[in-house]
Amino acid sequence: MEETPVLVQVESLKDFCVQVFLKMDVPEEDARITTDVLVNADLRGIDSHGVARLRRYVNGLRDGMMVARPETRAVTETPTTALIDAGGGLGQPVSHRAMEQAIEKAQEYGCGFVTVRNSNHYGIAGYYAMMALEHDCIGISMTNAAVLVVPTFGRDAMLGTNPIAVAAPAGEERPFVMDMATSTVPRGKLEVYNRLDKPLPQGWATDERGTGTTDAARVLDNFKTRAGGGLLPLGGEGELLSGHKGYGLALWVDVFCAVLSGAAYANLVYPKTADGKPLPSNIGHFFGAWRVDGFRPVDEFKAAMDDLQRRLRNTPKAEGQERIYIHGEKEYEETERRAQVGIPLNPKVAADLKTIGQELDVEYNL
Amino acid sequence: MEETPVLVQVESLKDFCVQVFLKMDVPEEDARITTDVLVNADLRGIDSHGVARLRRYVNGLRDGMMVARPETRAVTETPTTALIDAGGGLGQPVSHRAMEQAIEKAQEYGCGFVTVRNSNHYGIAGYYAMMALEHDCIGISMTNAAVLVVPTFGRDAMLGTNPIAVAAPAGEERPFVMDMATSTVPRGKLEVYNRLDKPLPQGWATDERGTGTTDAARVLDNFKTRAGGGLLPLGGEGELLSGHKGYGLALWVDVFCAVLSGAAYANLVYPKTADGKPLPSNIGHFFGAWRVDGFRPVDEFKAAMDDLQRRLRNTPKAEGQERIYIHGEKEYEETERRAQVGIPLNPKVAADLKTIGQELDVEYNL
Repeated sequence: MEETPVLVQVESLKDFCVQVFLKMDVPEEDARITTDVLVNADLRGIDSHGVARLRRYVNGLRDGMMVARPETRAVTETPTTALIDAGGGLGQPVSHRAMEQAIEKAQEYGCGFVTVRNSNHYGIAGYYAMMALEHDCIGISMTNAAVLVVPTFGRDAMLGTNPIAVAAPAGEERPFVMDMATSTVPRGKLEVYNRLDKPLPQGWATDERGTGTTDAARVLDNFKTRAGGGLLPLGGEGELLSGHKGYGLALWVDVFCAVLSGAAYANLVYPKTADGKPLPSNIGHFFGAWRVDGFRPVDEFKAAMDDLQRRLRNTPKAEGQERIYIHGEKEYEETERRAQVGIPLNPKVAADLKTIGQELDVEYNL
Repeated sequence: MEETPVLVQVESLKDFCVQVFLKMDVPEEDARITTDVLVNADLRGIDSHGVARLRRYVNGLRDGMMVARPETRAVTETPTTALIDAGGGLGQPVSHRAMEQAIEKAQEYGCGFVTVRNSNHYGIAGYYAMMALEHDCIGISMTNAAVLVVPTFGRDAMLGTNPIAVAAPAGEERPFVMDMATSTVPRGKLEVYNRLDKPLPQGWATDERGTGTTDAARVLDNFKTRAGGGLLPLGGEGELLSGHKGYGLALWVDVFCAVLSGAAYANLVYPKTADGKPLPSNIGHFFGAWRVDGFRPVDEFKAAMDDLQRRLRNTPKAEGQERIYIHGEKEYEETERRAQVGIPLNPKVAADLKTIGQELDVEYNL
């Protein structure tokens, strides 16, 4: 049904992306960080957040929505907390530095938390949470995003898919890496169902009246025209399956990422000037790290993490099921596979990269 | 369908509970704290976690599952983190002190986090998160609990209903108070459906084969006999409506409350000695506080919290709906109502309290 993917090697894909960002006047370190976050998403199998988005970054940098060389500013700082104004720059470099700062604070004081405002899309939430792992810290990362999700009983989208990521180290087992949008599904899933002309399951989305719908094309059209409806929070429509809990999680993310930082919230859209020029979107992020040994010796913690995972994995399966997963496990397996055999790019994405290369005079050596 | 409730006044209900705990040899301060947490649940309308549970605490203290005068011990401490061993005592007093310690650390360093092990049921998670509010802090509280929830694709319950509570102050509006079990619904909801002989919605629970079921009595029976099945995580069965996300949230709570503290996890049951005497359950908790002004001036934060709430409240409603709620709003309204008119106790609960009073020679003056 989907076309044969184009296999590309990790290092050549990275080289290409770095060159593209350099051509867009992004400083080299920022180009490398942004590339690493994007390609890491592809490695982990989260194709929707990988180089498939390179076009959006190139356009954003070209049109002024993203500033290539932003004036980043420390607004507030205490021993364990900080607020950074990202100056409308790319989300990835400032997020990488904010998470590094949170980890440094954790190393000195036990934990550290940094919020960021005036930023842009930062890629996969899990990337930053996972930065804590090599320091024997637990990491957390959240971001808000352009509104696509309706509050419980609401007709219009007022919340982003607002993901939460938490990463905790283990010993012999792989780390626990939860990285979840707080909506039932992301928009990309609706696009897949639309392409396949399949009806959506109830609990994924609502129509322009705010009522549950199985019509993917209608929901996607309504996004474009802002006619109402949108993605449903985790737990679905109304309160029967506790959609208000997913709504609460999304709101939590908005409080931590936007209310605590001064970023846009509740009806965040990508703003434009009067003559249609896109402006920085003022997205907000939240990062944190806790030292494991601030609570318990690291070796004890890791042994218990291993034991917890093994108990879950070895417990009896539901009828017809063969495997119980730990969060992050599928992505680690995919990373190992793709690091060896290459990243399978959708042919449309590969063609798009080729076009970007031609436009910017960057050799497409994939 | 349900019998007419018995209206009791808040202060007389508190006096009664304090006397009961004193008779069980609980120190006065601990008796007052435990009572306050229980009656606060009744005030907020969370009847399942209020004085309806007094019998379980009385039995727990009588049988040795809960220690009336535990040796509480500080195991680890850094400027911003700590681990407390609760010595098998009641969950509420140690949790109240742990949250106070987290707030003190936040006031000094910007944030503070305390885990607790070797504890017992601590009541409503929201109570502790809300303690941060009067200090212009954001609070968080989590606890694990006896296993009732199945992991995605698993047959047997391996996780508790593991709630997460987050509380953030506002200005003229009420604080945001999210307090949610990470399962679709708590066991109490199945009990209500069972009493009314109503079929369960799909997505709430599984049977002994690990398959979705609408049969409440069967699920409740299976709990007793440990035959398999249980409550489903938020998002329901399998991955179609993202049940793996609810499973991830429950696992997160286990990592923070149990793996980070040394409490029991994964197949936590209420343990017993060889001759059937109950033992402390080694439940774990996690508490934290962030100073708002560690990130942003408090007045700016509160103004944005008000604005966020108003925008959500005033956005168009889904067809047939009249109101969009902010988390905590219903409970604040219920608290105001019940503080005036009294707490409506289920007649069975009122009768149970009367029996406890007779057993312990405490006057039932409700």
